[in-house]
Amino acid sequence: MLNLNFHPAGRHFLQIPGPSPVPDRLLRAMSYPTIDHRGPEFGALGLQVLAGIQRIFKTKHPVVIYPASGTGAWEAALANTLSPGDSVLMYETGHFATLWNKLATRLGLKPEFLGLPGIEGWRHGVQAPMIEERLKADRNHTIKAVCVVHNETSTGVTSDIAAVRRAIDAAKHPALLLVDTISGLACADYRHDEWGVDVTVSGSQKGLMLPPGISFNALSPKAIEASQSAKLPKAFWAWDEMLEMNRTGYFPYTPNTNLLYALAEAIEMIEAEGLEKVFTRHNRLAEACRRAVNAWGLEIQCADPAVYSPVLTGVVMPEGVDADNVRRIIYRCFNMSLGAGLGKVKGRMFRIGHLGECNDLALMATLSGCEMGLNMAGVKLRASGTAAAMVYLQSTAEPADRPH
Amino acid sequence: MLNLNFHPAGRHFLQIPGPSPVPDRLLRAMSYPTIDHRGPEFGALGLQVLAGIQRIFKTKHPVVIYPASGTGAWEAALANTLSPGDSVLMYETGHFATLWNKLATRLGLKPEFLGLPGIEGWRHGVQAPMIEERLKADRNHTIKAVCVVHNETSTGVTSDIAAVRRAIDAAKHPALLLVDTISGLACADYRHDEWGVDVTVSGSQKGLMLPPGISFNALSPKAIEASQSAKLPKAFWAWDEMLEMNRTGYFPYTPNTNLLYALAEAIEMIEAEGLEKVFTRHNRLAEACRRAVNAWGLEIQCADPAVYSPVLTGVVMPEGVDADNVRRIIYRCFNMSLGAGLGKVKGRMFRIGHLGECNDLALMATLSGCEMGLNMAGVKLRASGTAAAMVYLQSTAEPADRPH
Amino acid sequence: MLNLNFHPAGRHFLQIPGPSPVPDRLLRAMSYPTIDHRGPEFGALGLQVLAGIQRIFKTKHPVVIYPASGTGAWEAALANTLSPGDSVLMYETGHFATLWNKLATRLGLKPEFLGLPGIEGWRHGVQAPMIEERLKADRNHTIKAVCVVHNETSTGVTSDIAAVRRAIDAAKHPALLLVDTISGLACADYRHDEWGVDVTVSGSQKGLMLPPGISFNALSPKAIEASQSAKLPKAFWAWDEMLEMNRTGYFPYTPNTNLLYALAEAIEMIEAEGLEKVFTRHNRLAEACRRAVNAWGLEIQCADPAVYSPVLTGVVMPEGVDADNVRRIIYRCFNMSLGAGLGKVKGRMFRIGHLGECNDLALMATLSGCEMGLNMAGVKLRASGTAAAMVYLQSTAEPADRPH
Amino acid sequence: MLNLNFHPAGRHFLQIPGPSPVPDRLLRAMSYPTIDHRGPEFGALGLQVLAGIQRIFKTKHPVVIYPASGTGAWEAALANTLSPGDSVLMYETGHFATLWNKLATRLGLKPEFLGLPGIEGWRHGVQAPMIEERLKADRNHTIKAVCVVHNETSTGVTSDIAAVRRAIDAAKHPALLLVDTISGLACADYRHDEWGVDVTVSGSQKGLMLPPGISFNALSPKAIEASQSAKLPKAFWAWDEMLEMNRTGYFPYTPNTNLLYALAEAIEMIEAEGLEKVFTRHNRLAEACRRAVNAWGLEIQCADPAVYSPVLTGVVMPEGVDADNVRRIIYRCFNMSLGAGLGKVKGRMFRIGHLGECNDLALMATLSGCEMGLNMAGVKLRASGTAAAMVYLQSTAEPADRPH
Repeated sequence: MLNLNFHPAGRHFLQIPGPSPVPDRLLRAMSYPTIDHRGPEFGALGLQVLAGIQRIFKTKHPVVIYPASGTGAWEAALANTLSPGDSVLMYETGHFATLWNKLATRLGLKPEFLGLPGIEGWRHGVQAPMIEERLKADRNHTIKAVCVVHNETSTGVTSDIAAVRRAIDAAKHPALLLVDTISGLACADYRHDEWGVDVTVSGSQKGLMLPPGISFNALSPKAIEASQSAKLPKAFWAWDEMLEMNRTGYFPYTPNTNLLYALAEAIEMIEAEGLEKVFTRHNRLAEACRRAVNAWGLEIQCADPAVYSPVLTGVVMPEGVDADNVRRIIYRCFNMSLGAGLGKVKGRMFRIGHLGECNDLALMATLSGCEMGLNMAGVKLRASGTAAAMVYLQSTAEPADRPH
Repeated sequence: MLNLNFHPAGRHFLQIPGPSPVPDRLLRAMSYPTIDHRGPEFGALGLQVLAGIQRIFKTKHPVVIYPASGTGAWEAALANTLSPGDSVLMYETGHFATLWNKLATRLGLKPEFLGLPGIEGWRHGVQAPMIEERLKADRNHTIKAVCVVHNETSTGVTSDIAAVRRAIDAAKHPALLLVDTISGLACADYRHDEWGVDVTVSGSQKGLMLPPGISFNALSPKAIEASQSAKLPKAFWAWDEMLEMNRTGYFPYTPNTNLLYALAEAIEMIEAEGLEKVFTRHNRLAEACRRAVNAWGLEIQCADPAVYSPVLTGVVMPEGVDADNVRRIIYRCFNMSLGAGLGKVKGRMFRIGHLGECNDLALMATLSGCEMGLNMAGVKLRASGTAAAMVYLQSTAEPADRPH
Repeated sequence: MLNLNFHPAGRHFLQIPGPSPVPDRLLRAMSYPTIDHRGPEFGALGLQVLAGIQRIFKTKHPVVIYPASGTGAWEAALANTLSPGDSVLMYETGHFATLWNKLATRLGLKPEFLGLPGIEGWRHGVQAPMIEERLKADRNHTIKAVCVVHNETSTGVTSDIAAVRRAIDAAKHPALLLVDTISGLACADYRHDEWGVDVTVSGSQKGLMLPPGISFNALSPKAIEASQSAKLPKAFWAWDEMLEMNRTGYFPYTPNTNLLYALAEAIEMIEAEGLEKVFTRHNRLAEACRRAVNAWGLEIQCADPAVYSPVLTGVVMPEGVDADNVRRIIYRCFNMSLGAGLGKVKGRMFRIGHLGECNDLALMATLSGCEMGLNMAGVKLRASGTAAAMVYLQSTAEPADRPH
Repeated sequence: MLNLNFHPAGRHFLQIPGPSPVPDRLLRAMSYPTIDHRGPEFGALGLQVLAGIQRIFKTKHPVVIYPASGTGAWEAALANTLSPGDSVLMYETGHFATLWNKLATRLGLKPEFLGLPGIEGWRHGVQAPMIEERLKADRNHTIKAVCVVHNETSTGVTSDIAAVRRAIDAAKHPALLLVDTISGLACADYRHDEWGVDVTVSGSQKGLMLPPGISFNALSPKAIEASQSAKLPKAFWAWDEMLEMNRTGYFPYTPNTNLLYALAEAIEMIEAEGLEKVFTRHNRLAEACRRAVNAWGLEIQCADPAVYSPVLTGVVMPEGVDADNVRRIIYRCFNMSLGAGLGKVKGRMFRIGHLGECNDLALMATLSGCEMGLNMAGVKLRASGTAAAMVYLQSTAEPADRPH
C-alpha cells in the first residue's frame, strides 16, 4: 500500500488548527471490534455518547451526531430549519464563514453577507451592533436565520456569541441563531443553552481530538419547531427520524461505530481533566504563543485582544515574505505542519494550532520550529519568542496531581 | 468509559450482513497518525485510493468518496442527477429498496414503486421485463431514473443488473440507471461500465471490510452531464467541486483521513487475493451455507437460485417460530450476532452474513451456532446442516499457496 | 518489512496448545506508551500485577515475574534452590518433562527420571506411588527436589499435584516440590499454597493469553529459605534482589513494561469472568472436544480419564496415518494451526488447543477443520465428531449475562 | 485495570536514556497476531530478523536473540565463555559497568575492577593504556576476558572500543573482549567485526526503539570456540542449541514472537533512513544538547569531548542543588521524564536522553522543559540553552526528501 510511514525520523508535529493530533487513547478506542449497530450493546454506547456530548455543548436539548464530516453539519443546520429562497444573515469573519455562505447559496437560500470592509473583517470578531442594526431594519422579518462562526479557524478570532444573542433580542427579531463552532468546541468555552443558540454546528477533529468523520447539530426547542415546517429537502440530514431513534440510543441508518468509540473515550478524557480546565489550558497555551509572536515583533492576525482564539494563532508575515515558503521550510527541515493562510490572506500569514491534546512542551517544540524556520526564511525577528513563551509558561506552571 | 470489552469470553462472531468484521490489518491502518489533509502526503494517498476504488467498481470513470455512511450516498445519487418533482422508477426487492424509495420521497421526488405482489417481491430479483414494460409505456419520458438494488441486504437476493440495462435499452428510454450495491461491492461481481450503470452507490462496511463511515458514488459521463442541469439543492453531496479537487488527490472539505488509510489497505488486501478470487470465495461459502439450510429442511428467503446472494443467506423460520427468539438464544448462548428480519419479514426469518474476511472455518463456526440455536429453540431440523456444509467445503477446498 | 499479513483470506485459527490467540484487549494494552520503569507510575503498575498474579496462582507468597520466556523460569526454579551435583527426582510425563530433565542436566544437577515404561508414561499422569516409593528408598535424603509437570503440553495430561504432595509427605522426605504449570495456569485449577508446592513455574502465552515473553516462579517460604544456601550460580534469575525490589513494585533490572500492561489487563479479564468460571469453561470445551474424538473413533493420547487436560487434547492417528500430513492439509486448506506430535509421538498424533479465549464457536470451527482435514487425509471416521460436540455444547450451554 | 491513561493532558515526553519512546509503527507491528513459532511463516520471520540484526551490529557472525531483557544478555556473555573462578578484567565507567561487575561476582567469576579513581572514572571513557598495562602484567594469562561498556548509560560517555582492542593486541593477550553496548546500538557507530569484539551485548529498548524484552549476544568465532569448553552452567542462555536452531530461523524454546515483529520493523525503519544517517542524526542532536548545557553554564558529566555520547547527556548540578528535585519539578509541571543520577552521582546530576526516534523539535521540547525546570528550581543559568541549541540546529538543518 501507500507507505504511510513516510515521515522522516521521529514524530511529526501536526500543528495545524485541526485535524489535531489524535491521542493514542482514541486510536486504541477506535480499534475496538465493530459491533452490530442494532444489537443491545450498541444502544448502551449510543445513549452514553448522546448524553456525554450534551455536556460538552452545555445543553439539555438534543445533539444530533452525524456519521459525516463537518461541512455536512453546516448543510444540516440550514436544511432542517429553512425553506428554499429564505433569507439568512451571515457574518464574514473569514474563510470558513465565506464557505458557509457559499454553501447556503448552493442550497437555494439567499444569504446576505455582513462584515467589516476588506481585510478588517478577517481581523475582528462578529460586530453584534451591525447585526442588531440590520435586524431592526428587517421590519417584515424576512430574515429567517443569523449565521455566525464562533471560532474562525482561518484567522484565530473567537467571536462573542452571547453578544450576538443580545443583538437579536434587542432587535426583537424572531430569526434563528445558527452558530458554527467546529473548531471551538472543547477548546473555547461554549454555552449552547445559556447563549440562546438555536443550532450549533461542530465536528470531531478539533477539540474533541478524533479523526475527522463525525459532526454535530446541537438543537434548541425553537429549532426543532422550525424544522417541522422547513421545506428544504432533506433525508440523510433530517432531524426527525434521528431524534426519534436516538431516544433508545440507536440511529436511523448506519452510524460510524468505531468513531463513536473514540467519541466516548474523548468525552471521558475531557471530563477527567475537567471541561473548564481544558479551556484554561487552551487559554494559557494561546497566551504563551501570542507572547512569542509579540516578542518576534510580528503581528497577530486577530487585531482585537478581546477575541483572541484559544485554539490557534494567525501570524502575519512582514511585507515581502511568503508565508507558504516559511511553512515549507519548517515542514521540510523540522517535520512540522502549520496551517496555511486561506482565501484573502493566502501567502500573507500562517496559522499555529495549539488545540486538543497540546501541552507546554509540545507548544515549545512548535514555537522553536517556527522561530528557526522564520530565521531560515530571512524574517527579521526582534527577540526570541521561545524565551518569552518560556517566561510565561514557567511563571504559570502548575504541578499535576501525580502518583508521587 | 463505557466498557467496550463487554463480550463474554472469546471472540464475538459478527455474522450480520454488515458491518462485517474489520480485519486487524484495517484496524492497524486506521491507527496511522492523522495527517494534514492539505499537505503533500495527503495528495498521494488521495490519488491512490481514488484510482484503486475505480478498479473495484470496474470503471474508468470517476468514483466519488464521501466521508459519510451509505445512506448519504443514496441521497447523493439522487440529488446530483434529479430535479424537484422528477419521477423515478424504483423496484421493490426488500427493505432497503423500500428505504431508498422513502428517501426519494423525502427529497421531493415522485418515486413509482414497481414489484411483485406481497412477499413475493422480497423473494425474487428485479424483474427486468416489468421495467421494460413500464418504460415503454412512458412515452413522454417522464421517468428520469430507474433505481434498483443489486444486492438486497434484507433478503439475500442479488439482482441481474445487466438485464435491467438491457430492459432500459430495449425500451429505448433515456432514464438514468442508478444502482445500490452497498452490500454487494467486493463480494459479488459488479461491472459499473460494462453494465452501463450511471450511478452506483456503495459503502465501506461490507465487502470492503472497513468500519462504516465512507460511501461512494461511481459515475458515468451521462450522470455527470445530468448533474449539470439537475436542480435538487446539494452542497455536501455535490459532485462538481469533488471531481475538480479529486484531480490532484484532494477533497473540497475535510475527508475522513483515517478511514481512507483503511480503504487503501483494504484495496491492497483484495487485490493481493485477486478480485475475482474474492468473488469465488464468497460464492463458495454462500453455497456451503445454502446446503446447510437445505439439509436442515428450512427455506431460503431467496426463492430463485439464479439470484442467490453470495453475501448473505436469509433463513425462513417454520410457521410459529419467532426468528428473533432464535437469534436471541444464539446471541446469548454462543456469542454470535445474526441479522434480524426487517420490515415485511420481521420475526419470520434471520440473516446469516458470510461476507468480507469470512473463510471456511468462520462459516463452520457460524453454521454450528445456528444449528445449535435452532435446536435449542425447538425448531425441528431434518438433518445436520453443518455436515452438509462440510461435505461441500472439503470437496471443493483448495490448498493456499503458503511459505512451505 | 516481512509481510506479516500473509495468511489467506480471513482469520487464522491458531489452535495450538500455546501460544494461544492474543485477545485484542491485550494487544491494545500492549500498545500503551512505554513508561520510565523507575518512575512513580511504574511502581503502581508493578504492585498491581504482583498482587494480581498471586491470586491466579492461589498463593499468599511472592511470585517472581521474569522478563523472559518460560524455559527461563524452569532454569530459575532449579538455579535458586539447588547446588551443583544435587540429585533431583523428575517424572517423565512427556516431551516437556523430558526437556526440563535435559535442562537440569545442563545446569550440573543429577536428575533421576522416573516414569512408566515406553509410551505409557506419555499417556498417564504422574504416578504418585512411584514417587513415594522412590523417596522412601532415599534414606539419606540425597534427593533435593521432586520436579513434575502439572499440565503436560505434549500429551494433554493434567497430573494430580496434591497426590504428589501427599506422596512426599507420606515418605517423610524433605525434598522440595517443583511444579511446571506453564500451560496449565489460568486454564486448569491450580493451588500453589494448598497443594504445598515450593516453586511453581509458569508462562504468559497460554491461559494468560499474552504473547510469549513473561514467565513466573511462585515461591514457598521453604523455597525461599533453600535459595539462601543454594550454590548454583545465578544473577538474572536470582530471587533475592527481585523480592527486595518487588516490595515497592519495582524490578532490579529492566522489566518488559508493555507485556506487564497486557498482564494487568489479562488478570482483569480473567477475574471479571471469574477464575473458577474460566476453569469450568475450559473443562466444558475439553469435554466437547473429547466427545468429538470419541465419535470419530480415534484414540485420545491421554489414556486415563481422571487426568484429561482441559487445555488441549492429543488425537492419536490410526496406524499408517502421518499426523503431520493431516496437520499440513488442515493448515493449507483451512487456515488453522494445530500442534504437532513431539518427541516420542512425533507423526503419531496431533494436538488441539482449546485454551485461553476459546469459546464454543471457536471450538466448533476447530473441530470442523479437523473433521474435514481427517476426511481429506483418508482417515476413516466412525461418526461425526462435530455432531457429538454440538449435542454436548447445546445441552450444557448457559446464556451469558448481557445488556438485554 | 490500572488506568494507564494517567498522564496529564497531552503527550508525555519520555526523555530518559531508554527505554526510549516506542514509535507507533513498532507498536502496530507488535500487534500482529501471534503465530505458531514452529510453523512455516515463523521460519521466514526468524531468518529475516537474524540477518537484519547482523547488519546493525556490523557483523558476519551469528547474533543470538534472547527473549529476555538486557541484564540477561550480560549473564549470557559471561556464562557461555567462562568457567567458575575465572578472572575477568572489567573497567569502571559508571553505574552499569559496576552492575555488570557485581553480576560477574554472583556468577562465581573473579572480576578485577580497573578504573580512574573516585568520580573521575565516571567522567571519562575506558583508558585503554591501563588495560594494556594490566594485561601485560598478566604473564600467565590468568585473565580470561576483558569487559567494557561502550556507551555508559549512567554518565553519557562512549568509549573507544577499537582502542581497547589495540590494547589487548599490544599486550599480546588472549583474553576475550566482551562489550556492552546496550544503549549504544543503533545510536552510536558500532563495528563488532572490525573492532574485533568477541561478544557484544545489547538490548531492544534503546536505539532499536522497541519496548524492553529482547536482548542480544553478537559473537565472534573465537567466542564460539571458547563456549565449547566454558564450564559455567547454562541452559536458557546456551549458544549451542540456539545457533543450531537459528540456521532455519527457529529457536530452541518459545521466542517472544510479537517483539520480533517489532524488531523486523525497527530494522526496516533504521535501514530506510540509513544506519549511518541514524548515527549522524544522533550526533547532531547530542551536539545541540551539549550547546544548551554549555550556554546554561552547567557542566556536562562527560569531561572528555572525545567520548561524548550521542545517546544521552549527563547534566551536573551546581553545588547544593538536588538534581532529583529538578527532575521532580519537570515531571510534575511539564510532563517529562528525565534520567536520574545513579550510584555515585545520585542526586548530583540528571540525564537527558536524545536517542531513538528523537528529532529536532522533540529535542527542543526537551531542552525547553529542562530550562524552565532549572529556572523554577532556582538554578542560576548563564544564558539560554534553548537559544544556543536553536542556533546550531537551524544552521545545520537539512531539508528532508519529501513528496513535494
